[in-house]
Amino acid sequence: MAATPDVQALLFDVFGTVVDWRTSIIEDLSAFGAKKGIQADWAAFTDDWRGLYQPAMEEVRSGRRPWTILDVLHRESLETLLAKFAISGLSEADNDHINRVWHRLKPWPDAVEGLTRLKSRYIIGTLSNGNVGLLTRMAKHGGLPWDVVLGAETARAYKPLPRAYLASAELLNLKPAQVMLVAAHNGDLAAASAAGLATGFVARPTEYGPHQKRDFKADREWDVVADSFIGLAKAMGC
Amino acid sequence: MAATPDVQALLFDVFGTVVDWRTSIIEDLSAFGAKKGIQADWAAFTDDWRGLYQPAMEEVRSGRRPWTILDVLHRESLETLLAKFAISGLSEADNDHINRVWHRLKPWPDAVEGLTRLKSRYIIGTLSNGNVGLLTRMAKHGGLPWDVVLGAETARAYKPLPRAYLASAELLNLKPAQVMLVAAHNGDLAAASAAGLATGFVARPTEYGPHQKRDFKADREWDVVADSFIGLAKAMGC
Repeated sequence: MAATPDVQALLFDVFGTVVDWRTSIIEDLSAFGAKKGIQADWAAFTDDWRGLYQPAMEEVRSGRRPWTILDVLHRESLETLLAKFAISGLSEADNDHINRVWHRLKPWPDAVEGLTRLKSRYIIGTLSNGNVGLLTRMAKHGGLPWDVVLGAETARAYKPLPRAYLASAELLNLKPAQVMLVAAHNGDLAAASAAGLATGFVARPTEYGPHQKRDFKADREWDVVADSFIGLAKAMGC
Repeated sequence: MAATPDVQALLFDVFGTVVDWRTSIIEDLSAFGAKKGIQADWAAFTDDWRGLYQPAMEEVRSGRRPWTILDVLHRESLETLLAKFAISGLSEADNDHINRVWHRLKPWPDAVEGLTRLKSRYIIGTLSNGNVGLLTRMAKHGGLPWDVVLGAETARAYKPLPRAYLASAELLNLKPAQVMLVAAHNGDLAAASAAGLATGFVARPTEYGPHQKRDFKADREWDVVADSFIGLAKAMGC
């Protein structure tokens, strides 16, 4: 028996919840740097890049900037960081390759198995601030078996704005309570819950490596709390 | 070697091209009618329902009516037909079940194998006038292995308006020429080609049963012309 009998679709936060962006990017850029003969603190580079994520989206959320997809925001942040880390001599193709590291992120070890089990009974999809092209390529790269790719771009609103959650449910012809957001971030779940969605928390305590400061555990009694996507699948009757 | 080396994504017309809507609906409604003790010419009912499809969308395309998803247009047409065929006594749940027959359409026999082969090398997705919820449920029902579900609803424009094609390419961060529309309808391909997309034709000469009047073969030298999705996969190097 599922914990939430009304739920027909599980939509997932992606960065941190489904994929291990930090380890993936550090490994990918370290290999790229070695090949190109570039010395840099790639862990610091990766952490700084992620650090520019929320401020960049906030320009769009606030209305100060028109709708802009995450690939473009990532690329602008990348230019800032290349200057900060004094990395030069890269071609346009190199910069594009680096920016697309966000398309090459690797799933946490339990993600594909858990999603595959959940897919047998539910619609499974993304509800991410990543753009559709990014998420589609990431899914092919990592074998993520989504039924549907939704999120900020299809809603034209970045989480945690309510529109991001509500438009995603609408695109599936579902009421908010028929959709569960699954995330490793209590703040994302709080916004989803306020919009009427069901909530599932899966802890990812190493997402930020040594810099993790929060989200070690559920802050509230979310509808489901699990320690992996396998546990989530079991809790949902799969 | 693929016929069109620039193409990175194949997006598919769905009704008629991927699924056999006519046979599926006649069989589904005949079984439903038998269970409910309703006598009707379900083939004529099905043909009439499809006949109301273009006029309903034209109200939206023309701007006379605000954006409305296909599930809603189908439901309105259904009410008209239930009156025309003097079918009464159905509950709201019955009517909803009938309307969702469009979510239960069966793929042509070659569709899943061809799509699975193409998926190994390309992004594959929908570019349909069906809404996202309809297409997502149809894919789960029929085992269609889409990477991404796009079309009129994500573009907020019904084919053959150029926006339907262009917005779908944009959502994948691709130029129009990097996307191939695959369709069994020459008119759809003509509009896609005018918008800059590559084109693939797969004949479905029994789509309309005894009423088929056109699209028996390619009217032009489309980029790829194949007699099945298997042939299409071969032509695309898969």
